[in-house]
Amino acid sequence: MKARVAIRYRPGVLDPEARAIEKALANLGFTGVRGVARTRIIELELEAADREAAEAEVRRMSEELLANPVIETYSVTIADR
Amino acid sequence: MKARVAIRYRPGVLDPEARAIEKALANLGFTGVRGVARTRIIELELEAADREAAEAEVRRMSEELLANPVIETYSVTIADR
Repeated sequence: MKARVAIRYRPGVLDPEARAIEKALANLGFTGVRGVARTRIIELELEAADREAAEAEVRRMSEELLANPVIETYSVTIADR
Repeated sequence: MKARVAIRYRPGVLDPEARAIEKALANLGFTGVRGVARTRIIELELEAADREAAEAEVRRMSEELLANPVIETYSVTIADR
């Protein structure tokens, strides 16, 4: 089964890499950029009894390892098959 | 205008962070994981005359800064408004 976790910073949390990209783009002459945000996507191929079991498992993975719930939010999508 | 760049490793390129996640999940007892892949998403808010101009600009940004075309592929999506 394929699962996809999308991880973003919570609103108000500073993303230093996004700020660095913003500055670097301005320095390269891309002056039309008004904002930069990043999302990390982690795709998992996993064995699970069914979609519900897969989703529960991936939520545990997200809480324990993939995301930092203090500063990040995550959403889980289970693909068919 | 909102643009979204999705950046992935080319097939065959080793992603050390994905391998580290895979190992860490196994160590945490998530034994059903058969594969891990990552995609970086960069969302941009930008001023552009129209969608075509925005897409061309974001492709230049991707080539010059956001992606490493040697080991990564990218795709650009322009959102409405």
